Amino acid sequence: MNDRLLRAARGELVDTTPVWIMRQAGRYLPEYRAIREKISFLELCKTPDLAAEVTVQPVARLDVDAAIIFSDILIPVEAMGLHLELGDAGPRFPTPVRSSADIERLGIPDPEERTGFVGDAIRKARRALSDRVPVIGFAGAPFTLAAYMVEGGSSKSFTQIKRLMFERPELAHALLDKLTETVILYLKMQVAAGVRAVQVFDSWGGELSPIDFEAFSLPYLARIVSTLKATGVPVILFGTSMSTLLPQMKRTGADVIGLDWRIHIDEGRRILGPNVAVQGNLDPMALFLPEKELQARVEDILHRAGPTGHIFNLGHGILPSTPPEAARALVDAVHRLGTRAE
Amino acid sequence: MNDRLLRAARGELVDTTPVWIMRQAGRYLPEYRAIREKISFLELCKTPDLAAEVTVQPVARLDVDAAIIFSDILIPVEAMGLHLELGDAGPRFPTPVRSSADIERLGIPDPEERTGFVGDAIRKARRALSDRVPVIGFAGAPFTLAAYMVEGGSSKSFTQIKRLMFERPELAHALLDKLTETVILYLKMQVAAGVRAVQVFDSWGGELSPIDFEAFSLPYLARIVSTLKATGVPVILFGTSMSTLLPQMKRTGADVIGLDWRIHIDEGRRILGPNVAVQGNLDPMALFLPEKELQARVEDILHRAGPTGHIFNLGHGILPSTPPEAARALVDAVHRLGTRAE
Repeated sequence: MNDRLLRAARGELVDTTPVWIMRQAGRYLPEYRAIREKISFLELCKTPDLAAEVTVQPVARLDVDAAIIFSDILIPVEAMGLHLELGDAGPRFPTPVRSSADIERLGIPDPEERTGFVGDAIRKARRALSDRVPVIGFAGAPFTLAAYMVEGGSSKSFTQIKRLMFERPELAHALLDKLTETVILYLKMQVAAGVRAVQVFDSWGGELSPIDFEAFSLPYLARIVSTLKATGVPVILFGTSMSTLLPQMKRTGADVIGLDWRIHIDEGRRILGPNVAVQGNLDPMALFLPEKELQARVEDILHRAGPTGHIFNLGHGILPSTPPEAARALVDAVHRLGTRAE
Repeated sequence: MNDRLLRAARGELVDTTPVWIMRQAGRYLPEYRAIREKISFLELCKTPDLAAEVTVQPVARLDVDAAIIFSDILIPVEAMGLHLELGDAGPRFPTPVRSSADIERLGIPDPEERTGFVGDAIRKARRALSDRVPVIGFAGAPFTLAAYMVEGGSSKSFTQIKRLMFERPELAHALLDKLTETVILYLKMQVAAGVRAVQVFDSWGGELSPIDFEAFSLPYLARIVSTLKATGVPVILFGTSMSTLLPQMKRTGADVIGLDWRIHIDEGRRILGPNVAVQGNLDPMALFLPEKELQARVEDILHRAGPTGHIFNLGHGILPSTPPEAARALVDAVHRLGTRAE
């Protein structure tokens, strides 16, 4: 197996810098769009053959060093018993979680029983890849999942989840606790199905002040990370607009911290210290630069990150309007220039 | 005149920490909503008597140390000749700026002639306040205005403005140059009408990587700051999710840097060094905390910021659902605790 990504996550020497792309299985690929013409996003997540197929597509087309299982962070929340709608306007929970009774009603699902399709998709993707590259599993951070559940979808100001935190902190913690148990079981199931690394998305963690992140996200992330690390897989922790929270992210114990493009990657490394690997951090829109300038940005990031403990990635998901050729040019540039990074 | 804010902006000693609240003239106030029942947002901006009235409302109710003129950052853009719609779903430019011809068509408006209502509102607000507290003027940063104009409104990924920057940088710079001239004339007009400080909002600057901020925002901000400082008024520079760009923000020469709530204010000061004042940085949602906990947060920020060179504010605009009593409690807490901050 191409183990560059796993070696980089552990800070070991690599022949070149590993690279994968957040949302690499997605709408910018014509072969993905062809499948989505026949099936909704949520049904695709729940159909192992097709989920495995779209998981594998970018490995063939882009030559990335890892596949990430095609799914959605809200899948385990639906399995907790909260009705989920995934439309073009983003995810929606029509009956948001607001009260003590709402929280008590939520189950901690048996992951094989309620989300076994994710395990099946992982096994099928591994077979289709002949284990050529590792498959990455993933889950949402408890705070991020709670935010979706309490807001009833995405939000601009996160007034509902913050009101719950500020006005009824005991309820917020009860919800976060249930989510943490759910996420741990869910990620362990993915590990049992054969993922070789997991990424935890705290997509909305960057909305919190350092004080609130320390109270409402960090302890739950730390529990997930320590449990998952005990299974032997490295844990990548990622969020956007979170670079002021890097000291707190480090305290979760994650092996790899994902950075968005708002910070120079060497500055991120300086804050994190030598014992944490970093992932990132090209602006997804940089894929619209002329090829020479794209290369210069890749070289700059590789140079700033240094030759070890770096997994190249975008600083956020690839955008639907991106030409696939630009994504391939990025991967090739990383592989070509990565060996000369020191 | 209560000159705490001006003294703090210059790093001078104050009797207590000055405080104002972004969007303090706004929807959370019943007296503001009463006026908005009769008139649209845009018409209110253009009606000096009423704009002055809502500017003054929060000074009476909250005892803040400054008024900020009621207006919108897109007012001078409309005056450049771009049709603007301000609806409930946010601002929209139905004919966005995309081509060289689109940019050439834009004028650099004479601010008195095209936006004289802003100057009139400032003069009326000053009279209504009997110059008891300073009136703050404001404008959008060229990059932020360009983003609205090219996207045609707000955006999530800023694909259009970044494509312009990355694919046709000469056009992006031509647009930014025109906006810089417009903003300088517009702010000078506000100074002539009697504002005692100005705030520049780079609301979307935090979407840029450090490299792109240095190319597409910093030089234009620096031009605005140096021209405005020559008129004798301090310049406050604010944006959200920008704390990884503090070294670049400092290089604009701004007297005061506004911080959002994502960073501890002492960490911001450490990065900025001793010769810049800071503004901020309570999470607007903290106004939903029980009063004792709100006070503890105020005290923490005052303690971290230190007794000089600090203007207390929220880290973003006050939210419409906020109880006005909480805003008053905040102002009182800052004034009461600010003297004991060292």
